Amino acid sequence: MYDLVIIGAGPAGLTAGLYAGRFRLTTLILEKLTVGGRILLTETIENFPGFYKGISSWQLIQQMEKQVKDLAVEFRIEEVRYIDCNKKILKTDKATYTAKALIIATGARAKRLNVEGEEKFIGKGVSYCAICDAPLYKEKEVVIVGGGDAVAEEALYLARFAKSVKIIHRREQLRASQILKERLKENKKIDFILNSIVTEIIGQDKVKAVRIRNKDTEKQEVIACEAVFIYIGYEPETALIKGQIKLDEADFIITDEKMQTSQEGVFACGDCCKKDLYQVITACAEGAIAANSAYKYITQKK
Amino acid sequence: MYDLVIIGAGPAGLTAGLYAGRFRLTTLILEKLTVGGRILLTETIENFPGFYKGISSWQLIQQMEKQVKDLAVEFRIEEVRYIDCNKKILKTDKATYTAKALIIATGARAKRLNVEGEEKFIGKGVSYCAICDAPLYKEKEVVIVGGGDAVAEEALYLARFAKSVKIIHRREQLRASQILKERLKENKKIDFILNSIVTEIIGQDKVKAVRIRNKDTEKQEVIACEAVFIYIGYEPETALIKGQIKLDEADFIITDEKMQTSQEGVFACGDCCKKDLYQVITACAEGAIAANSAYKYITQKK
Repeated sequence: MYDLVIIGAGPAGLTAGLYAGRFRLTTLILEKLTVGGRILLTETIENFPGFYKGISSWQLIQQMEKQVKDLAVEFRIEEVRYIDCNKKILKTDKATYTAKALIIATGARAKRLNVEGEEKFIGKGVSYCAICDAPLYKEKEVVIVGGGDAVAEEALYLARFAKSVKIIHRREQLRASQILKERLKENKKIDFILNSIVTEIIGQDKVKAVRIRNKDTEKQEVIACEAVFIYIGYEPETALIKGQIKLDEADFIITDEKMQTSQEGVFACGDCCKKDLYQVITACAEGAIAANSAYKYITQKK
Repeated sequence: MYDLVIIGAGPAGLTAGLYAGRFRLTTLILEKLTVGGRILLTETIENFPGFYKGISSWQLIQQMEKQVKDLAVEFRIEEVRYIDCNKKILKTDKATYTAKALIIATGARAKRLNVEGEEKFIGKGVSYCAICDAPLYKEKEVVIVGGGDAVAEEALYLARFAKSVKIIHRREQLRASQILKERLKENKKIDFILNSIVTEIIGQDKVKAVRIRNKDTEKQEVIACEAVFIYIGYEPETALIKGQIKLDEADFIITDEKMQTSQEGVFACGDCCKKDLYQVITACAEGAIAANSAYKYITQKK
């Protein structure tokens, strides 16, 4: 039996591992694919404090991973197939594990458009994070896809950098709040392409344009742009714990300020949680807090 | 008038500045002494994710400072003498400033014993943070000074590394909770020196011993040790805002999860806030959240 099993090795899970290792908890980190997670969608991280001129996401993750591996923390690349939050039992495709406490750091996945060119140009013009990548497109023409509050906010933010921002939305109207819609209309850099869907992202080594189709007229059009920001929502990776711990209406995990979930001894951190700001730095802090809370839970329980 | 004035240039204030600068808010950071703050009390930061083998606190702060200065964020070394949280007016010894929003990142100061040798050996055996520095004293003899829950928790944590931990407390009994006291007594590495106060910290280039005096017998004694952890509390730097925004009983600022204080448009982050875990990584995340909230406040207000 481990003191602690952490599921997910993105910045949140790795920082939880760093703190747990320093607390000398016997700790196992399970990761289904590759260490890093969603951060690897962004090429350069400029807004992580401590790295003047930024750091590549790959390098940052490598540093974090080495930091954790230097402690007696165990890593396994195995996909978790079953979690019993109450009994703290996990099954992967290879083994069964038990623990005194769990930290869920499974992250979230930006919903994809699922169109040609999308996967190919991730990090080369296709972005799921304006707050991360907007400064790369100063005085450039960009498009942003989606219709909710997030799109409106990110479009306004993009307009602080870009030459022009076109919002492409499949409906006749944005779903964003009125005040945001007014501010979008006042902003001369921002235009709307409504009733339209993106059918292809076009480029060679990087994005050059998007092909769109009007849903009413069926007319197709090619819009030149250097970046496509996609904001059609996130899906947290919480299917395995649904029904066991409290989630919000979009399946994000609800925690208190100690990163405690509704199930005693189960903590959560990072992008799988409901919160205000989804950033690498916030994920890391939540990882530290979750490990600290798990440490207190484990040592005070005995 | 600035969009935003940030008071304090520790990790919290600097990260708030980094985010505010990227949001293109016109931002001023005011710092009374030197950029860095309490972090500089620790020589090497090993638990900040992203730095394999750790980083010196001085280097970390320098990187953060350069990151912020690369943006159009203004820095001034001026001590704030007066704050009107409602009208967002600040007076320093040199000038008066107004802003649309404020971020308070003034930090906290570990209470000092005020004995000979204390200031001299900070970072050379004198520490105010077991969670930061305990791993430096593997198999060494250490003492810890204080009597509350924090001392009990940190002593148990220190005992995971040190050869022996002596708790020096001026009263007959610790104030710590019963469960923690029991666990201290069970732990064979931990001893108590009660009714005693530290009168001097002794060493040459680093700590070698502490001199203590028994309050009943007035007998003095020299206790050999390589580290002195001092846990007699923290004082948040919140005197200027007391009475204007909601503080807890120890004068730490109360915020919500968006780092909003009880006064609209005034945000807080870092060690001056009431929270569960006082770490560099948590201070930074709070700085990012405070800047994000200030940005939303400023842009949605207009």
